[in-house]
Amino acid sequence: MKESQVDVLVIGAGPAGLMCSFGLARADVKVRVVDERPKKVAAGQADGIQPRTIEVFQVLTTAINSTNDGVYFALQSYGLADRLLREGNQMHMAAFYNPKSDGSGIELTDRVPDVTAPTARYPFEVTLHQGAIEAIFLDSMKEMGVEVNRPIRPTTIQISEDKNYHDGHPVRVVLKLLEGTGNDEEDSEVVYAKYVVGADGAHSWVRKSFDIAMEGEQTDYVWGVIDMIPDTDFPDIRNKTAVHSNNGSCMIIPREGDKVRVYTQLEGKAAIDARSGRLDKSKLGPNELLDVARKSFYPYTFKAPQSFDWWTIYIIGQRVASSYSVQERVFIAGDACHTHSPKAGQGMNASMNDSYNLVWKLAHVLRGWASPELLKTYEFERRKYAQDLITFDKGFAKLFSGKPRTELNQDGVSHEEFIRAFQTFGGFTSGIGVHYEGSVIVNAKHQNIAAHLVTGERVPPQYLLRAADSRPFEIQDLLPSDTRFKILVFTGNTSEPSQLAKLQTLAEELQAPDSFLTKFSPGGKPETLFDIISISSAKKESVVYNALPQLFRSHWSKAFLDDTPFTGQLGGKVYSTYGIGAAGAMVVVRPDGYVGTIAPLNGVTDLTDYFASFLTSSSA
Amino acid sequence: MKESQVDVLVIGAGPAGLMCSFGLARADVKVRVVDERPKKVAAGQADGIQPRTIEVFQVLTTAINSTNDGVYFALQSYGLADRLLREGNQMHMAAFYNPKSDGSGIELTDRVPDVTAPTARYPFEVTLHQGAIEAIFLDSMKEMGVEVNRPIRPTTIQISEDKNYHDGHPVRVVLKLLEGTGNDEEDSEVVYAKYVVGADGAHSWVRKSFDIAMEGEQTDYVWGVIDMIPDTDFPDIRNKTAVHSNNGSCMIIPREGDKVRVYTQLEGKAAIDARSGRLDKSKLGPNELLDVARKSFYPYTFKAPQSFDWWTIYIIGQRVASSYSVQERVFIAGDACHTHSPKAGQGMNASMNDSYNLVWKLAHVLRGWASPELLKTYEFERRKYAQDLITFDKGFAKLFSGKPRTELNQDGVSHEEFIRAFQTFGGFTSGIGVHYEGSVIVNAKHQNIAAHLVTGERVPPQYLLRAADSRPFEIQDLLPSDTRFKILVFTGNTSEPSQLAKLQTLAEELQAPDSFLTKFSPGGKPETLFDIISISSAKKESVVYNALPQLFRSHWSKAFLDDTPFTGQLGGKVYSTYGIGAAGAMVVVRPDGYVGTIAPLNGVTDLTDYFASFLTSSSA
Repeated sequence: MKESQVDVLVIGAGPAGLMCSFGLARADVKVRVVDERPKKVAAGQADGIQPRTIEVFQVLTTAINSTNDGVYFALQSYGLADRLLREGNQMHMAAFYNPKSDGSGIELTDRVPDVTAPTARYPFEVTLHQGAIEAIFLDSMKEMGVEVNRPIRPTTIQISEDKNYHDGHPVRVVLKLLEGTGNDEEDSEVVYAKYVVGADGAHSWVRKSFDIAMEGEQTDYVWGVIDMIPDTDFPDIRNKTAVHSNNGSCMIIPREGDKVRVYTQLEGKAAIDARSGRLDKSKLGPNELLDVARKSFYPYTFKAPQSFDWWTIYIIGQRVASSYSVQERVFIAGDACHTHSPKAGQGMNASMNDSYNLVWKLAHVLRGWASPELLKTYEFERRKYAQDLITFDKGFAKLFSGKPRTELNQDGVSHEEFIRAFQTFGGFTSGIGVHYEGSVIVNAKHQNIAAHLVTGERVPPQYLLRAADSRPFEIQDLLPSDTRFKILVFTGNTSEPSQLAKLQTLAEELQAPDSFLTKFSPGGKPETLFDIISISSAKKESVVYNALPQLFRSHWSKAFLDDTPFTGQLGGKVYSTYGIGAAGAMVVVRPDGYVGTIAPLNGVTDLTDYFASFLTSSSA
Repeated sequence: MKESQVDVLVIGAGPAGLMCSFGLARADVKVRVVDERPKKVAAGQADGIQPRTIEVFQVLTTAINSTNDGVYFALQSYGLADRLLREGNQMHMAAFYNPKSDGSGIELTDRVPDVTAPTARYPFEVTLHQGAIEAIFLDSMKEMGVEVNRPIRPTTIQISEDKNYHDGHPVRVVLKLLEGTGNDEEDSEVVYAKYVVGADGAHSWVRKSFDIAMEGEQTDYVWGVIDMIPDTDFPDIRNKTAVHSNNGSCMIIPREGDKVRVYTQLEGKAAIDARSGRLDKSKLGPNELLDVARKSFYPYTFKAPQSFDWWTIYIIGQRVASSYSVQERVFIAGDACHTHSPKAGQGMNASMNDSYNLVWKLAHVLRGWASPELLKTYEFERRKYAQDLITFDKGFAKLFSGKPRTELNQDGVSHEEFIRAFQTFGGFTSGIGVHYEGSVIVNAKHQNIAAHLVTGERVPPQYLLRAADSRPFEIQDLLPSDTRFKILVFTGNTSEPSQLAKLQTLAEELQAPDSFLTKFSPGGKPETLFDIISISSAKKESVVYNALPQLFRSHWSKAFLDDTPFTGQLGGKVYSTYGIGAAGAMVVVRPDGYVGTIAPLNGVTDLTDYFASFLTSSSA
């Protein structure tokens, strides 16, 4: 059989697998991705991208530029987010319909923002069918020379105890080409990988191969989904709309172009085969699902569409894998780790964000920058998140599937109860509120000096001015996912000589032999692993940007101000919003944009301690 | 000799010629463009794009979508503006340096916004070398199948009196291929064109062929220009900086990447050949120009750069062509019509906006939609603008070249005087304040019902919400340069039954046989020439977007609200900003984004009169 080696083998090219292989390719890691489907998804499936995921798309493709152009070109490339926003529909509004008091059908009860996460940079969801989202990744990967090998199915996977097995590639996977010659040996191949990521879906072969259990249960809620271009008089057809009627619940998700997705609640029995107890798609078709929806939407009407784009029926299962990794050599991500209802709007988002969390850690360990211990934080951070998601989903799905409260049904779900849940969990469903607990990479020791820049959470958007030219920038655009730690130096007011003197001292301490900047500097080049950005509270009219010590303006584009532009109302609120005082602060931002730790300007040793807990000084 | 026919022959592929041929190609007009240079500009030349020109770049490539997707996809394509903003540098700040009172060099006097035009959508200038800007056009044109033929020089041009000459192609031009076979006949070609645009620069062959005079004069101001990556301690090197020193004036224009342009004032004699009285570039080189600049910048220093990107010396001439057209068959545009100093920052901008003004008019006449009279408005509108530009330039260049006012030189130019001129003319230099006077296409009869939406000026930016989905939109993105007139129907509050009844009446009047919508409808399809967009003052929480008459929501994406989004502070100010009352108004926006005329909701006949003055009903 053929044999080959690779740093990371990704099994499965759905959202989790594509995010993983895209991120690794972008980090220049040797990656191979295989999928058993002959083609990418053509229609239907998951279709909602949450605000935090749009932020991730943005920072993932903020171009990395190692020349002295600094961030200049970095902000300007077309990227994943550009294309997502170009092709996708935006949901800004959520509408709620409930039974009229006279029982004659439904009426509009309320309209509220679709996203309730005040710090979201993109305060909306984007909807676009899964195939189009996969295409965004596939096309970008192709530019980097990485393509999905398909249709390929893995047949065996083993981890060697010997770290040096096959030159440090301890995971042995046999792959089989489907639709090949038909000769098993010719169609098979042995791949030796340093790491394997199983992103192979809810029925994950990788997960089953290692007997990882799914913990949780299946619910009784049965739902149908139809995708179509509707012909209707319903006035909220372009908003995310939740309908609680006396004839069941429905949800509208407007999509790209004129398409709309309709979720309809089904009476369990109608779609379940009496003998097997399993879902039977032959019992119901899209026309029957539309008929069910029509009853909920009365008095509004839906004409029969020319065709249905896609449809399905599903039972909600709410489960989390008991483990996310095998010896930190094989990982699982996405649906392989967690299943939940589409109502939480998390489908692709949780999956892609699993991979996003894993990618930079794999890159650091593969490059010898970090100890393998770093990889343990993947399960620690993402399994906790999945458990929280299931807890949320259980409550929300119950409210959603419940009968509306009416005069006759005082035990039903009231609009107030439903919208409270909708808004309370807005931070969670948007992905903005994700909080990683303390670990080697999350240390809240000095949280108090930047009280509102929460350690373990992503850096919230803020506008800055670039000191040299007063051009406004969004801080997230200064934090690209380029596998580097960003050291944000909030310098205080550098127009004051005393503060400038403190910065001079800080620059010397940072460049001393025992500082992390020196000790963990790959090949003696700190900028390979650390990107230093300064943010002064001086004002644009009087700032002399080149009075700063050189370390804090390695290029003119690296020094920023907490000030407003001449035009526009944005900016000038970074220190106050983050809770940083006049004394300043240093903030370590992880490569994935989450706050790692915080220290005062005289706290270089704290930062060195932080990095020493997971970085390796071998390369110095 | 070879012979061919074309609708429009464009001579010259600089900024004016490229804007012309790009715009015509985008309007599906058969266009050919020739240039005598073998290649596009590689460095230097003009490099500043003004705020209004960025707006034009934006609307030029807001994709035209004739499907029922409406504006949905329209806003999302990558276009000229995307690429300009991706590649160019932004100037947000202007800094001013003047002599210190003790005479020891210069000091910072003031920093102000670079752009003083409150309604600018992009409140900054973009700098990028002319070759890169030409590449943006060339690449986009290539996608449409249009390439510049070069190196080709025209040798004769004649206009036939006979309109039917060569099947309606009355302009005969002989072109000669340079670097061809060397055989005159083989290298020559006769082109018969319906129209010819001479965009062939300050020494325009087309202009000279028809003996069109340049009116105006040459000044005594001599300036040098150097482009380089500077090594300096000057703190405003990334701002647009005007230096008035006792050793002459300088100007800094930061450029893409780390490049900077330095303009230096020269003593006239140093660069002028005593015998001929002409500029002699052999007398001065870039190092000498930098030496001159160094004296102005003292005490700040400039080290010698590794190389100079480009350099030149020029004398300012301020002239305008006496005519812009010959029989409305041959037109001249750009530098062929006007020359002025680079200090006004108008170089490419005035040229490209000449062509932008001409393109839609040519397209309308070629399609038989409009009478040839429409073409007379080109000279009427653009020559007036050029004259205003020269007047401004004379005053500004004088102030710029003048000595600074000091204790010893009380007759010099004071900072206050200079900055007053800088800011007073901000609307003019930004291109935002351009005002076209009354003509067949500019009729201010009902100006009072939209007092601040000035007839003859471009529609200023405002945020709207789309009624069906509360998605915010910038109004300029609803006004793409797709050669259609936009009929903005400010409906008033359509949640009120009485207002809705008025709209019903309006819809009937607009669809009556004597309305412009019917009379001037090409091939019986009003949407080919008119795009109707409604803007209601109803509120997002309660609006029922599909209660509007169908004409005002031909697709769900065509109905908008004057309301704020749930998040963000923009929007909800269209009626008040434009000065439109509760009774509403109809606003005709020309295909180039300028307000053509305004009428009350019961004023369909006024609009019909307006269109009847230049449109032809032949195609109905």
